[in-house]
Amino acid sequence: MSGEQVSGVLERTERTRGRRLHQRVGHGLDDIRAVLDAASVAHVGYVQDGTPFVTPTFHWRDGDMLYWHGSSASRALRASEDAEVCVTVTILDAWVLARSAFHHSANYRSVMVFGCPRRIEDEAEKAQAMRAFVERRFPGRWDRLRAMHAQEVKATAILALPIAEASVKIRTGGPVDDEEDMGAAVWAGVVPIVTGLGAPEPDGTAGAAYPLPVVAA
Amino acid sequence: MSGEQVSGVLERTERTRGRRLHQRVGHGLDDIRAVLDAASVAHVGYVQDGTPFVTPTFHWRDGDMLYWHGSSASRALRASEDAEVCVTVTILDAWVLARSAFHHSANYRSVMVFGCPRRIEDEAEKAQAMRAFVERRFPGRWDRLRAMHAQEVKATAILALPIAEASVKIRTGGPVDDEEDMGAAVWAGVVPIVTGLGAPEPDGTAGAAYPLPVVAA
Repeated sequence: MSGEQVSGVLERTERTRGRRLHQRVGHGLDDIRAVLDAASVAHVGYVQDGTPFVTPTFHWRDGDMLYWHGSSASRALRASEDAEVCVTVTILDAWVLARSAFHHSANYRSVMVFGCPRRIEDEAEKAQAMRAFVERRFPGRWDRLRAMHAQEVKATAILALPIAEASVKIRTGGPVDDEEDMGAAVWAGVVPIVTGLGAPEPDGTAGAAYPLPVVAA
Repeated sequence: MSGEQVSGVLERTERTRGRRLHQRVGHGLDDIRAVLDAASVAHVGYVQDGTPFVTPTFHWRDGDMLYWHGSSASRALRASEDAEVCVTVTILDAWVLARSAFHHSANYRSVMVFGCPRRIEDEAEKAQAMRAFVERRFPGRWDRLRAMHAQEVKATAILALPIAEASVKIRTGGPVDDEEDMGAAVWAGVVPIVTGLGAPEPDGTAGAAYPLPVVAA
């Protein structure tokens, strides 16, 4: 699964071509991978009885395959399997305050991936995917945990979507104001949004005896 | 628009009833409003040609109306108008590290709102909504900015969706482990995820002469 990973640019499709602000939309795999890896939460869109549903979930990437998981009983997972989905991740980096209301903006990184995910049935592939999920977020943790019980593996569904039809949208930099507003008597600039980890809170007294976990950024 | 706001509980519908982990799903308006207000980004799901799209956007709330905006030329906005959408916001509060891989979880707050948004056509209502958007995020800023030009108002589309069919899902607390795993030799507990604002970065030298902006949490 985690085969070689080459740089490249995905083909633009009708769904990923970007209608506006073309300069912000890209299809380069390096950017797509980096934004997927940097995001903690993905929003999976799927259609059921003609109605859209958007479900938050945790995703991970292995090579150019995007994974997410849930309960085998989950409506979202069952409705997404082999059906068209749109998986979107968004990282908000900063508020951009301009000299007019109209030009206020935000710096962000966002990826949309389209396609039909398949459900992983093979037990070995499923086990490798779950290990990759835990290790991606908490490096070194998998081997400290007991092996998963067979019924736990069975109760977990994992979907896999090739990162083949996708786009990335990134905004960086300061406000872009109209020339005639540049003398406006108002603060303008960027206010960064910073996300980090707080102090770990052990569960009971026993947990505190063991090394603190490593949590990936 | 910003009429009286009463506490209450929304009716559970087929779309919002929550299939699993019932204890985490609620329909109380106070919780729904609080989570919508605390989230910076919304993901709007809509259907076009049978395919789901999930577009990140900035939302705001006024009473029990949910708003978001975009360019009048935006595909996402035009496809969402008077059509079924699902607007989801998610705030990730902590990673929850359990004593087995299976019970790893996360603390989060999430809201899903279903319905058919209408586009605001009335100029006065549009102006009030845009003011509410700027003021909600940057209190006191609207009156420091020049009035919007007519063509800017025209270029901006605002959708309004009643918060009438919605659910909220909240997880808090530590890991819930199997009894037989409680002696496992591994750290277990909660690692908070903290989001804040970095130091404002003024655009050029002129901006630095004016009072720093207020940015709401």
